[in-house]
Amino acid sequence: MSVYAGFPATLNAMATLVEVLKESGKTLSKVAVHAGSAGRYERGKEWLSRIAPHQEQVLKDTFDTINPDITRYVIEFGYGDIYARGILPIRNRQAATIAALAAKGTAPSQLRFHIGGGLKAGLLEAEIIEIMLLISLYAGFPAALNGILATREVAAAREGL
Amino acid sequence: MSVYAGFPATLNAMATLVEVLKESGKTLSKVAVHAGSAGRYERGKEWLSRIAPHQEQVLKDTFDTINPDITRYVIEFGYGDIYARGILPIRNRQAATIAALAAKGTAPSQLRFHIGGGLKAGLLEAEIIEIMLLISLYAGFPAALNGILATREVAAAREGL
Amino acid sequence: MSVYAGFPATLNAMATLVEVLKESGKTLSKVAVHAGSAGRYERGKEWLSRIAPHQEQVLKDTFDTINPDITRYVIEFGYGDIYARGILPIRNRQAATIAALAAKGTAPSQLRFHIGGGLKAGLLEAEIIEIMLLISLYAGFPAALNGILATREVAAAREGL
Amino acid sequence: MSVYAGFPATLNAMATLVEVLKESGKTLSKVAVHAGSAGRYERGKEWLSRIAPHQEQVLKDTFDTINPDITRYVIEFGYGDIYARGILPIRNRQAATIAALAAKGTAPSQLRFHIGGGLKAGLLEAEIIEIMLLISLYAGFPAALNGILATREVAAAREGL
Amino acid sequence: MSVYAGFPATLNAMATLVEVLKESGKTLSKVAVHAGSAGRYERGKEWLSRIAPHQEQVLKDTFDTINPDITRYVIEFGYGDIYARGILPIRNRQAATIAALAAKGTAPSQLRFHIGGGLKAGLLEAEIIEIMLLISLYAGFPAALNGILATREVAAAREGL
Amino acid sequence: MSVYAGFPATLNAMATLVEVLKESGKTLSKVAVHAGSAGRYERGKEWLSRIAPHQEQVLKDTFDTINPDITRYVIEFGYGDIYARGILPIRNRQAATIAALAAKGTAPSQLRFHIGGGLKAGLLEAEIIEIMLLISLYAGFPAALNGILATREVAAAREGL
Repeated sequence: MSVYAGFPATLNAMATLVEVLKESGKTLSKVAVHAGSAGRYERGKEWLSRIAPHQEQVLKDTFDTINPDITRYVIEFGYGDIYARGILPIRNRQAATIAALAAKGTAPSQLRFHIGGGLKAGLLEAEIIEIMLLISLYAGFPAALNGILATREVAAAREGL
Repeated sequence: MSVYAGFPATLNAMATLVEVLKESGKTLSKVAVHAGSAGRYERGKEWLSRIAPHQEQVLKDTFDTINPDITRYVIEFGYGDIYARGILPIRNRQAATIAALAAKGTAPSQLRFHIGGGLKAGLLEAEIIEIMLLISLYAGFPAALNGILATREVAAAREGL
Repeated sequence: MSVYAGFPATLNAMATLVEVLKESGKTLSKVAVHAGSAGRYERGKEWLSRIAPHQEQVLKDTFDTINPDITRYVIEFGYGDIYARGILPIRNRQAATIAALAAKGTAPSQLRFHIGGGLKAGLLEAEIIEIMLLISLYAGFPAALNGILATREVAAAREGL
Repeated sequence: MSVYAGFPATLNAMATLVEVLKESGKTLSKVAVHAGSAGRYERGKEWLSRIAPHQEQVLKDTFDTINPDITRYVIEFGYGDIYARGILPIRNRQAATIAALAAKGTAPSQLRFHIGGGLKAGLLEAEIIEIMLLISLYAGFPAALNGILATREVAAAREGL
Repeated sequence: MSVYAGFPATLNAMATLVEVLKESGKTLSKVAVHAGSAGRYERGKEWLSRIAPHQEQVLKDTFDTINPDITRYVIEFGYGDIYARGILPIRNRQAATIAALAAKGTAPSQLRFHIGGGLKAGLLEAEIIEIMLLISLYAGFPAALNGILATREVAAAREGL
Repeated sequence: MSVYAGFPATLNAMATLVEVLKESGKTLSKVAVHAGSAGRYERGKEWLSRIAPHQEQVLKDTFDTINPDITRYVIEFGYGDIYARGILPIRNRQAATIAALAAKGTAPSQLRFHIGGGLKAGLLEAEIIEIMLLISLYAGFPAALNGILATREVAAAREGL
């Protein structure tokens, strides 16, 4: 049974919902929060802009000349469906994404993008460094150190250094 | 320069510190929060118990007969050094660990352990399911679905089903 | 510019299109073949049934009790968007999927599922064995041998042995 | 029991054989198609040239000064034994190889080489893009997007752009 | 220039050669030690027996019914070409193999096989445990702990417990 | 029960100990060789210098400006705890590390560092090339060839070419 009639305008409404459900003991996980079939692109474009204001255009500039469907899938499914699910604030989503990409170690440019997205969404550089240090336990020191160096590079670029 | 004189007794002190530093604009990431050389095992044992109350004994029962140093390293470095660093609440550490292990897909039993640790530390099952859905974007659907199934199994076992 | 007005009913139309475009020198890759926003679930359900006739129900039985959105995403995006793209016959899609999963070695149950899907879609067991032998060159012998054993198990089960 | 007396001169003979076996119900997979112990290097050199006409020389130029056995193993086993097995046309072998390397994400230069090999062997750029989009489902979007960018770069270089 | 006229009968000759070359300053790495095209299967069978006396038969029993070429490739290339290269004693080859498989974490049964092969070839269980502890630094604790448990299981089975 | 009263000054003492224990049949693996809590940094700094004389300073120059704890963890745990464990000579530790990193393929700069460390610790370039050729069997040719190229580059740089 879905308790949502549409896409919440703010994160506050979602946070309140989570607290209410926690206190009421309802099994939140069984609640469908699929954001719906309509307006997936526009919704995705809005969520993507919260971690990188111009990224929709960057994606189009990079991929439209290869095939116009590529950016559509990333924005519709990645951001319009998954990121729009609420429950987890966008800052926590970025933290999980950063951890996953740092642990895998196979996508350095996307790791940099999401470190930037995390900083934009409110993570501190220090918090991202902590995630990387944790990665030393689960993927080894090379993955952790490479993640730390990436974090400093991205943070420095954002500081205009 | 380290701003800590010792290991903070509660998470609240750490949270306050983070807010103060954020507001003062100090670069928190440059602050050393190494928890010190003394009492690493005891400190680690305490942090480990926050995600799994009996895990120190489980580790000793499993590994002492192979070599008594194994549990020492896990507890001293993993929990006594890294988990004890503060900055990131233990619930967030578990979220990052869960994301990393689910994305890698090479350690199912440790993934299960940390899902349990996450639930113990205050993550909702729904929040962990959200992490797994995010993993579909960064490691593919098989990793995500396997993580979802693990989450439900661990949560069910904790509910005594 | 999209050359499709809707979802082709048969693979033959797609094959003809590919040949026409090849001969005319048009850059096929720039042709958008996004199957459209409407009816993604039904379309996905139909494509999924081509590799496993009852899998939609299996997914719902497995995941609906955890969260009803999970099966929706797999079917809507995985099969309704990606598998429905044409260009590559479903048998070739299964071959690529089998190669990817065998090379990664992190999702044995999904590998088995897609080996079965490949056989259903018209791949010969011998052709799948050839893919696995190729995997020895790109992911090593353990991945190849594990893939070969999985292929034989799935084929045997389908033969009713 | 091997049905081959030697190495088939053309792919057509192999295709015919596959069809005959399919129709006769024989279990093709149990047919040994080991191309034999003699002439492995020459046979491998010929198969390698079908995906990259000058690659034998490139391998020798790169590796002979390190150790002359390296190129021998790649050509003898990789191409003289595995690629020479028939059953799967070389274009399909390249498709599987591309899928495996894109999913792993750990060998970008070899992925580029085999994308080029695939185009040489008759795959369309559009078909390779489809494989990469499929990879988004099994290894995540970063792997898929990196594969797509590699595909366009290699195709552009071949077009002399 | 190859200094070998054929396959050395014992490891002692190889060890002596290595020492002579080290002392004379010759660049050993440029020395081709390809063991030759003749007798690859018999040579491979003999090398394989040094780590597992009955493994050739186990491979044939497992794979011949799937395709008789599989065991041929493993034995001819894996053991007849690569393991037969000398330079590195078989015990050191097993140590490197164990490290690689433990770090990858994707092939538990092959990891167990090669732990057994390492013990057979003269590695101590303690030495293998040391490799696994090193793996904690380069692939994380889960990989290390899983490798340690596998080592103890295999060693215990060999002790008849 | 620990048979060590402190940190052995030379490797010879360790080698002797291993032989004595082997002959006496004692189960070496159950012997704790934890190097102790005191002086971990200094001990680690000394072990690290055996594979790279100036690396402690390189680590500090790279990471202290990000967070001074990073280098402490690498040196204290990586080298002061794990590398200091004896049992396995440092040359064998480097061989295992090289195998692990080459097989994973996700940390090229750390692979280069440890190839250099291996050469410093007494491995021959030829021995490292042999490890890479073995990697072809367990992680595929791309990993092996990339490892071989890295080995030659590092060796060449050390020869001043």
